[in-house]
Amino acid sequence: MPSDPKQAGRPRLTPAIADVRRAVRGVLEGLGGGADGEADAGGPAAPAADAPLVLVALSGGPDSLALAAGAAFEAPRAGLRAGAVIVDHGLQDGSADAAEAAANQARALGLDPVVVRTVEVAATGDGPEASARTARYAALDAVARETGAVRVLLGHTLDDQAETVLLGLARGSGGGSLQGMPATSGRYLRPLLGVPRRTTRQACHDAGFDPWDDPQNLDSAYARVRVREQVMPVLEHALGPGVAEALARTAEQLREDEAAFAEQIDEFIEEICEPAEAGIAVSVAALAANPAALRQRIIRHVVASEFGTALSRVQTLEVARLVTDWHGQGPIDLPGCRAARMGARLEFTAAG
Amino acid sequence: MPSDPKQAGRPRLTPAIADVRRAVRGVLEGLGGGADGEADAGGPAAPAADAPLVLVALSGGPDSLALAAGAAFEAPRAGLRAGAVIVDHGLQDGSADAAEAAANQARALGLDPVVVRTVEVAATGDGPEASARTARYAALDAVARETGAVRVLLGHTLDDQAETVLLGLARGSGGGSLQGMPATSGRYLRPLLGVPRRTTRQACHDAGFDPWDDPQNLDSAYARVRVREQVMPVLEHALGPGVAEALARTAEQLREDEAAFAEQIDEFIEEICEPAEAGIAVSVAALAANPAALRQRIIRHVVASEFGTALSRVQTLEVARLVTDWHGQGPIDLPGCRAARMGARLEFTAAG
Repeated sequence: MPSDPKQAGRPRLTPAIADVRRAVRGVLEGLGGGADGEADAGGPAAPAADAPLVLVALSGGPDSLALAAGAAFEAPRAGLRAGAVIVDHGLQDGSADAAEAAANQARALGLDPVVVRTVEVAATGDGPEASARTARYAALDAVARETGAVRVLLGHTLDDQAETVLLGLARGSGGGSLQGMPATSGRYLRPLLGVPRRTTRQACHDAGFDPWDDPQNLDSAYARVRVREQVMPVLEHALGPGVAEALARTAEQLREDEAAFAEQIDEFIEEICEPAEAGIAVSVAALAANPAALRQRIIRHVVASEFGTALSRVQTLEVARLVTDWHGQGPIDLPGCRAARMGARLEFTAAG
Repeated sequence: MPSDPKQAGRPRLTPAIADVRRAVRGVLEGLGGGADGEADAGGPAAPAADAPLVLVALSGGPDSLALAAGAAFEAPRAGLRAGAVIVDHGLQDGSADAAEAAANQARALGLDPVVVRTVEVAATGDGPEASARTARYAALDAVARETGAVRVLLGHTLDDQAETVLLGLARGSGGGSLQGMPATSGRYLRPLLGVPRRTTRQACHDAGFDPWDDPQNLDSAYARVRVREQVMPVLEHALGPGVAEALARTAEQLREDEAAFAEQIDEFIEEICEPAEAGIAVSVAALAANPAALRQRIIRHVVASEFGTALSRVQTLEVARLVTDWHGQGPIDLPGCRAARMGARLEFTAAG
């Protein structure tokens, strides 16, 4: 059923639009001062002027546009105001026009305030994707502070999550690299991590929107684009449909696993550590009493928190053998520190 | 450097052959009564007639053939006898010839005994791959018992492991589905899980072997073949080289994680459970005190061990909400049982 673009401001409630709204509603619950809008199915009710503000990070693409429409509808019903922030990276010709078009769409949806922020992408040394990302989040943070927004909503979908998991595979450092993006991280929320991209596209179509297609989304110089355009179709063909969903589900569970280990380590890390000269010492007996998965995480945790460096799996296992396979090995040189078995303690000291 | 096939019995020590031997040596250590062979670099020394026996599961393909050669060399040096078992599934024309050729290669390597076992593959209802697998392991078990073998060595490589992880992705049930194959499982050992397929092929080439190419390895009716032939090349192209290694490393770490959770649950499961009428009851307080990852595993563990059924993630989360989001929900019907909140206990009772 094609939609009538003239009805863009007051779309029919289609399944795709309902899915997006439900996902947004799920994360907005409890953020507002209580629902004060009327149950008006046709458009958002007016929020109180002093209601807490949530911002939608809007690119004008289908995901963030569907998210903006969902937030415009749901926020007042949750006792919240909804605004939008559009970051213009200035990396392409016409990016200012695209940003202005997105801002107009946000205003048409009734979002307020609508802030366009132009940023300068400085090379961070981690590649162009990482540099743009750093600049983008700095701008989002700044606008959130300036507007007093309590949360910023990001439009990442289930398919983005699946792609992130596959990108993490290349790092190959276990569950940690496969966790994808968190649904909640500080002021940032990702309400659409369970919503497939086809649903956000359908929701835009149903609402008569004309989302922007970022040409960078087709530039195979980006690993993410290669994963999206090349890997996912082949995976679906080989393994059957539902691979993106499976990857997203896996990410969610691995995130829970990692949280459980972190919580356990938090509970006992202070008991098993004590200061040592120019470093920290960990009880060998405590390390030995824990299963390998925890022992290795403790070692990585101690080095990361004390010396700010990350151990590889090979390095971590070599340190672990000072506990599990002790036969008088010498000290082990690690990034930023050195590990040595000293009787009943494992000592980590700053590199000389 | 091409090898001279006439030297097949006494191959030069090339890097690939050394890699395979080292991997085999790693798993044979400690299985024998102590090394009693001579340090003869040219060929295996004679093991004692009453030395413990290890069997190589040989298909005649490059992986198991390289493994057989490695075992023939290393077993005597570890105080072990090495034999071979060849399973003829009878699924293809010429399979008996292929089995006999593999047996001859095993005898030429000095393996003894060499047992060819023809099996009948009965449909198990899980598809042809699973049926063949069930028949194969039954035959391997039988031959191991008959020959008194202490271990059976399987030729799965790092690439097989990576493929298994990707096949598990399609199931999408978290770390559990991404663990790949264990290096040790009862009498079965997989010494080559860290050795890439290119190394086993190279080792065969270096030794002048002529391994059998199973036509089923190219039949894209099998999901594993599609993963090997279609998915892995695209993944390597999109993410860069080393994807198979990354997948195998990830599997190893996820296996450790799962073992840690299993160990933790084992430690306290009896304390938090008690018998209930036609079932079992679990303390709500204990479930609430644990992180989500453990809570959900406890629920799945209780249902699996009490009723022999496996809960999906959706079902597990619904049961967990009887603890974490209790607002008077009714009983939940599950496969083989039903879960209900009864005051301070979660009761699981057999389905009526």
